[in-house]
Amino acid sequence: MRKRLYIALLHSPVYNKGYEVITTSVTNLDVHDISRAARTYGVKRYFLVHPQETQRQLVEEMIRYWVTGFGSEYNPDRQEALKLLELVADIEEAQRRIEELEGQTALTVVTDARVHARSVSYQEMRERISRGDMPYLVLFGTGWGLVKEEIEKADVILHPIEADSDYNHLSVRSAVAIILDRLMGSWR
Amino acid sequence: MRKRLYIALLHSPVYNKGYEVITTSVTNLDVHDISRAARTYGVKRYFLVHPQETQRQLVEEMIRYWVTGFGSEYNPDRQEALKLLELVADIEEAQRRIEELEGQTALTVVTDARVHARSVSYQEMRERISRGDMPYLVLFGTGWGLVKEEIEKADVILHPIEADSDYNHLSVRSAVAIILDRLMGSWR
Repeated sequence: MRKRLYIALLHSPVYNKGYEVITTSVTNLDVHDISRAARTYGVKRYFLVHPQETQRQLVEEMIRYWVTGFGSEYNPDRQEALKLLELVADIEEAQRRIEELEGQTALTVVTDARVHARSVSYQEMRERISRGDMPYLVLFGTGWGLVKEEIEKADVILHPIEADSDYNHLSVRSAVAIILDRLMGSWR
Repeated sequence: MRKRLYIALLHSPVYNKGYEVITTSVTNLDVHDISRAARTYGVKRYFLVHPQETQRQLVEEMIRYWVTGFGSEYNPDRQEALKLLELVADIEEAQRRIEELEGQTALTVVTDARVHARSVSYQEMRERISRGDMPYLVLFGTGWGLVKEEIEKADVILHPIEADSDYNHLSVRSAVAIILDRLMGSWR
């Protein structure tokens, strides 16, 4: 597999409902659903990004149950998905890990609700990933989404998921599944 | 909008991990995530199918909070998504509701992990839905999925979501998001 796709779920800095910058708590299903989608679509690693060590430790303990504890025998499919998960404090740490693994820093990719002058289509992004010459790291935000500064800093901004819809409040779990399918899925 | 797509999430009869036929409990996030995806993609109604009245009542109470209670003011986006939700005891009841709304019974659509002789592509299904001459009801199973009899009874069987992957254990929430995007999404 030449495709080198990484994903990261950020719990900070993200917006809350009132567009204040906050840190969210880790949600159990963000760990499980997104790991399973990542494994299905051949993502190389899923970084759970949280600045607080206590939150990261809590998740480490939960993962241990599924990866080496009783859960690994009870449900080996979960084990396989959760092996992709790695806990990091910030995007920089995720990038350092990718550099260790790939010898290259990844280009960062985000989606936004708005179309930007430099927005890239899913078709084009698919082709870039297929070329395999660069690793890519797709960033997702919990809460009400990634802060503006993170969107602007990203190397690639994708088109909105459903620009024509009058409603755009997908859960981050749904958004990850849809974007992985668009970028990596093989369907007819 | 001429597209007449309905979805139903079945809690019975479905398989458990050992392929025994069971009834599952309602999961909070199956209500919220799937309602939001349904609303985003213009699904006409989301049927939550559970044979037990107590389970249906529990969900009704939760919905009331978001649709007419405090939650409706606090988070009107949730309200809008949850308005699509309807609780029914079985597929037949969902079909009777569709008949009331459309004057026609819907053709049922399922996905399966295997390719069947009569499996239909997503592209073809998209075109059929766009034609708008029939309502369609896509059935999803909780637990380890819809029982074989329901798959065989369905009018349309779609291709597996990711036939080329060596891993196919998406959550039902992810599967719904992906399939709605394939059938109804407008992306480039």
